[in-house]
This record gives sequence, C-alpha cells and structure tokens, in this order.
Amino acid sequence: MRIREIDEFELIEILSQTVKSREVFQGDRLNKDEFRLVQSIGDDAAIWQCGVGTSVLTTDTVVEGVHFDLSHISWRDLGWKSLAVNLSDIAAMGCKPKVATVTLGLYPDIEVSDIIDMYEGMLDASAMYGGLIVGGDIVRSPTLFVTIAMTGYLGGIDSPLLMRSAAIPGDVVAVTGSLGTSAGGLKIISLGHPKNRIGYSSLLESHFRPVPRVLEGFEFRNLGIRAAIDVSDGLINDLGRMCKASGVGAIIQTEQIPVSDHLKQIFDEEWLVLALSGGEDYELLVTAPEEIIRKAQDIIDTPITIIGKIVDGDTVKVLDEFAAVVEIDEGGWDHFACG
Amino acid sequence: MRIREIDEFELIEILSQTVKSREVFQGDRLNKDEFRLVQSIGDDAAIWQCGVGTSVLTTDTVVEGVHFDLSHISWRDLGWKSLAVNLSDIAAMGCKPKVATVTLGLYPDIEVSDIIDMYEGMLDASAMYGGLIVGGDIVRSPTLFVTIAMTGYLGGIDSPLLMRSAAIPGDVVAVTGSLGTSAGGLKIISLGHPKNRIGYSSLLESHFRPVPRVLEGFEFRNLGIRAAIDVSDGLINDLGRMCKASGVGAIIQTEQIPVSDHLKQIFDEEWLVLALSGGEDYELLVTAPEEIIRKAQDIIDTPITIIGKIVDGDTVKVLDEFAAVVEIDEGGWDHFACG
Repeated sequence: MRIREIDEFELIEILSQTVKSREVFQGDRLNKDEFRLVQSIGDDAAIWQCGVGTSVLTTDTVVEGVHFDLSHISWRDLGWKSLAVNLSDIAAMGCKPKVATVTLGLYPDIEVSDIIDMYEGMLDASAMYGGLIVGGDIVRSPTLFVTIAMTGYLGGIDSPLLMRSAAIPGDVVAVTGSLGTSAGGLKIISLGHPKNRIGYSSLLESHFRPVPRVLEGFEFRNLGIRAAIDVSDGLINDLGRMCKASGVGAIIQTEQIPVSDHLKQIFDEEWLVLALSGGEDYELLVTAPEEIIRKAQDIIDTPITIIGKIVDGDTVKVLDEFAAVVEIDEGGWDHFACG
Repeated sequence: MRIREIDEFELIEILSQTVKSREVFQGDRLNKDEFRLVQSIGDDAAIWQCGVGTSVLTTDTVVEGVHFDLSHISWRDLGWKSLAVNLSDIAAMGCKPKVATVTLGLYPDIEVSDIIDMYEGMLDASAMYGGLIVGGDIVRSPTLFVTIAMTGYLGGIDSPLLMRSAAIPGDVVAVTGSLGTSAGGLKIISLGHPKNRIGYSSLLESHFRPVPRVLEGFEFRNLGIRAAIDVSDGLINDLGRMCKASGVGAIIQTEQIPVSDHLKQIFDEEWLVLALSGGEDYELLVTAPEEIIRKAQDIIDTPITIIGKIVDGDTVKVLDEFAAVVEIDEGGWDHFACG
C-alpha cells in the first residue's frame, strides 16, 4: 500500500499503533526516572510530567506548493503563519507557549533577505503571543519547508489541560471568532482576486495572518473548561475528531455558526460550506456546561458563540434553521490527500 | 544575496541576530512569568528554566538526496539515524532525553510499510537511549524529509549543563569512541562497495547506525565536566566551533586521535583526513582538567581518548607526531553547501 492510497489520519493511526506496541516498555523504563507521559499521540500536543512540572510539545510543518504558494503569500506572512499554527496547538491545550525551534529546508536560489523577512514574521507572532525562538536547524532541500516545534507550560494555574477527549453529552459546543474566513481568503486568491471588493482584505488577512487564540485557551482552562481542539482542518473535521476521541456525538445548528458579514456578502452561496468545511481558521472549538461558556463570554473579549451540543452517539449532525439535516461533503482539509 | 552564496553557519548567525534584536523584549516579558531562558541559539540545544525545572530542546532534519540516499540506507536505519542525531544533541548537553515529535514530509509513491520500518528504527534507538515519540506531523511534500524535535531534562543531578562555550585554556581535549568511521562507511558506499573487505561492515554500521553517547554525556556532566559538543560535522569543524564559542584555541595531536584499525587498513592514505574532517561521527568532544578526564576514563566503559589541549588564542592547530603543523582542508560537512 502506498501513501497515496491512505489519508493522513489513517497513517497517523498506523504509526501510533507502531509506537504504542513498544511504548509500555519505554514508559516503564522512564517511569522509574521521575518522568510520566500523560498524553501521547492523539491530541494537539503531547503532555508529560517531569518532577513537579508539566509540559506540552507540538510541531507543525508547511511545505511550498502544498500548504503555501510564494506567488500569493509574503515571506513575512509565511513566518507569522508558521509560528501561529503552532501557537494555536498550544492554545488548544490551554497552555502558555514557551520556546520554539525553527527548522528550514531551503534551496539555493532563495534570497537571504526573504528568510530574514520570514523570521521577522515569526517574531511578530512571537512578540504578541509568546513562544521564544531558541534554536533550530537549517538544511538544504529541493523543496522549501518550515517546521516549528514548540513547548508549552501550565502558566501558573493547576487546572487540567484542555483535551480532545473530554467532551461529555450535555455540554454545549462553542467556538471563538468566526469560521470560514480563512477559506474565503484562499478562495479569493484561487479566483485570482476578481475585482477588489469590500471585505476582501479582511478575508485575506484571516488567511495570511491567523490569530492564535492563546489568551482565550488559557482563560478557558482557568474557567474549568476541559475539552478543546483548534479548528485547523474545518469545523466538521475537527469536531468529528473531538467526538471520536471523546466517544460522543454532536449536533450543530447552521444558523448559529458565527460567519462574518464580509464572507456572506462575497460568497453568498458558498459561505456555509466554507464555514463548515473550510480549513485554517485556527479558532478554538470547546465544549462545556452552558453556564461555564456563558461565564467565558462575559470575561473574554473575543466573541464566543454556542453553535450546538454534545450528545450520545458517534456522529456529527448538522441541522439547518428548519431542523433539516444538512448533508456535508467531508472535504475539509486533508492536507495529505494528493491531487 | 542568495542562499547559495553563504554557508549554513553564516545564515544561522544572521538569523540569530534577527532573533536577538527582538529577544530582550520577549525575554523581559516572559521573565515576569516564572520563565527564564538560559541559552538560546548557539549550542547543541536550547535551555530554559521554568519553575524548578530546567529543560532543553533540540531539532534535526534529514532530507532525501541531501543527507541520505534510499538506494543505500534502509528505512529502518534511516529511522534509527534520524532519532540518534537528536539524541546526540541531548547527550552533548549532558541531559537525559525526554520526549520527541516526528515530522514526516512524504510523497505519494512511498510504501506505508517503509514508513512503519522507519518508525521501528526510531523505536529501536528510543528503546536503547530514550526519547519517547509522543507526536508529530505528517505532510505531503515533493521531497522526503524527516524532522525530529526532542526535549531533554536534568535527570536528577544538579551539575551545570555541558556547553560549547565552557572550554578553558589548560583543559585537555578528549573524545569518545573513534573518529572517521562513519565517513569511511560513506566512502565505501560512494565507491560502490568495491570488493567486500574485512571491516567494511563496521564502517557501514557506524554510518548507518551511529551510537548516540547519551550515557557518556550524562556521566561527563555528573563528573563535573562543563564543555562538550557532538562531532557531527567533523572534528576540526566542531572543535573550531567550540573554540569560537569559548574564545579559546586548541592544539590537536594527530597520533593521539582514536581511529579504528579497520579504517586505517581500508583507507591507508586517507584515514587521517577522514578522522579530522569526516562528518557524522556523533562522538562527544569534551574539554576539562586532565584529572577529570582520567576519572571519566576509569568510570566509563566507552573508550575516551585525550587528543590535545585548549590554549589561549583563536585557532585550532593540528600537529603530527613530529610536531609539524598539518594543513587542514576545512571541508568537513557543511550540509548546506550546494554542489
């Protein structure tokens, strides 16, 4: 079987099993050594305890021609986005970002000044949301890629970390910000910017400079929320992943999904598809008892919208305003699927 | 200026300056938050303190066609080596490996079973030397690459970490194992394995399954050694880097350099060049007062050989057995230099 025949998540599952088949031994050995692994493959970041501290570690990669196109994105934005997607994973654990390493695969024709611009973009994001760049690796590669690994820490509060697996029937489902805007930006690019219209820039900004919800994630955890994931592969995909990890189902109301006016105006027929299945929103999707979400809405400036609820079962059902089931094309963002 | 016009280390220097120009602000902000960055870009790993714990983080990448050729290396060995080079960086800090994330850039024609083999190789190394694989990222890429990020921890002893910058005039220079064997293995491959000879397999093994000196590094630190680097880019390159970081010079005696009999027999004219400039040994190079090195030799099973001394100055001088200066082609392993 070749890579083209399975999707990213099937492969991750296979490799997780490979690791787990040998983990008991490793875990045993390391347990003797003041070290405890809390969560391995299967959440936004790995978690471990060592001595009195708990840490998380995550990594994300972007590849030219697969995740970005330099004829569209600026080097500075590429830097921002590379760091932001990792910050988003740390945020989805409810942690504070600590340090990051940057690995660059570069080919000979790249301008050094462009790489510096990319670093400036990373530092823009780092200055706003944390994650000190402390090292990395630079290698020659025929394909340009940027891999960032980032650690996070508890940040002085003891509340449990936000987990994908912690959704419980009865919880409401809520999301920060609005959905589909980044995918809208991507669509504008792919259509070749047909006539500049009001709202284009906000969609493009969402696509090129996503905002990692670091403060929100930490505050969610502080408020006692337990379940979260960041929406990187589209609402339906990521909610589905959360439901699977938690052994639950969910019902989403389309009319409650937060969508920007610009997105609705520019894509008057497709905005719902973009909001349900578009990727790279990097908003936080959380589930919790409704009163906790209400409290979060009071405390946090960023809009937080209740869009549905967690139920028994194992499917994500999407209902329109007339309570009719909306059929979902599972498309979303399987970054691994090959054209 | 394009990437082809500068070498890896010049680029790292430029990017370090970019980061440092903005680090003060970041550091200040984070210091307020029970977090202290001890060492940033410029050693084998980054170090930070958070609460009572100190952690290190490192990352290393291999790219197909640049660092490895699948017509020579098996997938399982590729996995071993990918993890081992990170373990070696942790060893060079005198730390114990903690957790690792694995990022794979894969193209569609790769066999899934090969990827599993590669993971098995990583798990072989992890089972022997530590570094639990706890997560990662899988992306589509036209070029196959493997990036591993790994954290390390103090391991229950308080001794200062091993630093590149801690060499002091008067120290002796010592190295674990033997040098040049991995480069010898690579040379055998590039010559197309002309007639199998005794010793080939040991050289190939060194090249494909380098041994990270994790236990040795930890023991060095425990014994009070302060200065170390791992020999990944050749003895002269890495010793030069250490001298630069420490503001010192060094004198090496060629007749003291540990070289395997096999290497001398197979490459009777080139063995010294391979030992001085060949890369990927992943031995530890340390400097310390002679009595500490003697103690290490008593305690540690792995051969540890004194090969020279640290002196005032800023150059690495290589002397032959007649005290004549050996001219060094600085070749070594600039992984970034493009053909």
